[in-house]
Amino acid sequence: MMKTSSEMPGCARAVPLPEFLTQARKLVDSELDRLLPDESFSPKNIHAAIRWSVFAGGKRFRPALLLAVGETFGAARESLLATACALEMIHTYSLVHDDLPSMDNDDLRRGRPTCHVRFGEATAILAGDALLTLAFKTVAEDGKLSATKRALLISEIAGAAGTPEGMVAGQAYDLEAESRKVAAAELELIHRLKTGALITAAARCGAIIADGSTAALAAVTDYASQLGLLFQITDDLLDVTATAEAIGKTPGKDARSRKATYPALYGIEATHKHLAAAHASACAALDSIDEPTELLRSIADFILERES
Amino acid sequence: MMKTSSEMPGCARAVPLPEFLTQARKLVDSELDRLLPDESFSPKNIHAAIRWSVFAGGKRFRPALLLAVGETFGAARESLLATACALEMIHTYSLVHDDLPSMDNDDLRRGRPTCHVRFGEATAILAGDALLTLAFKTVAEDGKLSATKRALLISEIAGAAGTPEGMVAGQAYDLEAESRKVAAAELELIHRLKTGALITAAARCGAIIADGSTAALAAVTDYASQLGLLFQITDDLLDVTATAEAIGKTPGKDARSRKATYPALYGIEATHKHLAAAHASACAALDSIDEPTELLRSIADFILERES
Repeated sequence: MMKTSSEMPGCARAVPLPEFLTQARKLVDSELDRLLPDESFSPKNIHAAIRWSVFAGGKRFRPALLLAVGETFGAARESLLATACALEMIHTYSLVHDDLPSMDNDDLRRGRPTCHVRFGEATAILAGDALLTLAFKTVAEDGKLSATKRALLISEIAGAAGTPEGMVAGQAYDLEAESRKVAAAELELIHRLKTGALITAAARCGAIIADGSTAALAAVTDYASQLGLLFQITDDLLDVTATAEAIGKTPGKDARSRKATYPALYGIEATHKHLAAAHASACAALDSIDEPTELLRSIADFILERES
Repeated sequence: MMKTSSEMPGCARAVPLPEFLTQARKLVDSELDRLLPDESFSPKNIHAAIRWSVFAGGKRFRPALLLAVGETFGAARESLLATACALEMIHTYSLVHDDLPSMDNDDLRRGRPTCHVRFGEATAILAGDALLTLAFKTVAEDGKLSATKRALLISEIAGAAGTPEGMVAGQAYDLEAESRKVAAAELELIHRLKTGALITAAARCGAIIADGSTAALAAVTDYASQLGLLFQITDDLLDVTATAEAIGKTPGKDARSRKATYPALYGIEATHKHLAAAHASACAALDSIDEPTELLRSIADFILERES
């Protein structure tokens, strides 16, 4: 049944967002620690590189979104955790590979040397490969979910991570666009695939694990697509406006490398309008959901206002 | 029930091995063509790089082994094909990444420029990432298998492809060993993981799809481990003895880069003894299998005698 915004219940959970995010991060970090091979296991350099990259102070946004959507639709937290970690592994592998000299050539991430700077290029490539592989293994072996659900989740995640409609395709478009001026439609395609696809998959996986209805899954997909856009626009803005200390990497790098960004294409003022529109669309998408969506709304607010 | 070698039936199939291999290659190539995004789909450079690498004249040994084991235990060919292709995707991704300048730095493979030479390093990395991702997607979406089997196969393949006990670990050990003399146990570990793990997984996946018994799976695992060893030793020998034309890459490269090889460690003569022992062990492992294993024996013979 559809519900208008004014009928929405006041709050999805007793726990406010900052506490939810802190709890989610702790849980996910602890589960990742359990799932990733120990640094004392050979080949040690690969496992050290994996842990260096995974435990680099990431915000665990994708896992938190998966938990938030899953719990909104009634899933138990234990049933969501492995898939949440798998998404963080895939996100981390993509950062490790994107940072490589032949790709974005980044020396610094979250205020620390990137994986290839610290461990060498060959180890960084292999650490990324291992993380991607372990992500699928983790979901395939998750005893808390039915095999049918595991196969469905792997299909969903692989579609969002690969090509032609996923993250790898987005990175390919982004690299290809680096040396020239891109049009608005192309910029949106790059962002939708490079950042949006995995964020949308996180939200959809939460709904899938919770046995959400087709209508719920559609609403969650709309919400997360707008959230992904919101996330990327704030990322672009932070690159222009923030300090290195706040964002943990060299600001202004996108502009210098002529990367396709919202501020470069529209200017700062119009970019803020796009930001507000994406936020409004994300919230509007939640209106058709029967369950209390306060937590999901507050995630949209949080991204809109983020400073790092 | 156990069976001694002398009780074995004469032949597993009416089709002799060369015809089986040709049939298998045609089937796998046609299915790969169906599964891989067309070059006309964007991002075109990634899909062109994927197809350049996958359709480079590979022998499809892993898919053929999977089909041979699966059919030996009574599985229908249609139920084996998608998983066979997934293994070839993973094998191909590993070649693309291993050839990169920061890894083995190979310019030539199967007589053609390697992926990064032809398409650039960034595209080669992304093409490998996309292939690995698509491999898991292919198994997850294989409608010919139950979801339980799909999850089991993904777990099996990911274990063999990743770390600490799979192909990525093997490549890490191999790179690490390049600059120094390795001992026999270390050489065997490198080969077992780098080449053996995925070959063993191919055989095991065939048995899993065919609902082979625990005893059958154990026998197949033994057989394939020895087959993997056999494969690697012949590979090392071919690098020393073959011409560039026959093996499609620069011979003697392993020796020049001081890579860990059997001839480097044992000399040519003793290496041939290891070869014969691995062949005998592979055949002995088949003795406990009730089904006709002629085809699997002839695969062991074929590898022993291969010239490319």
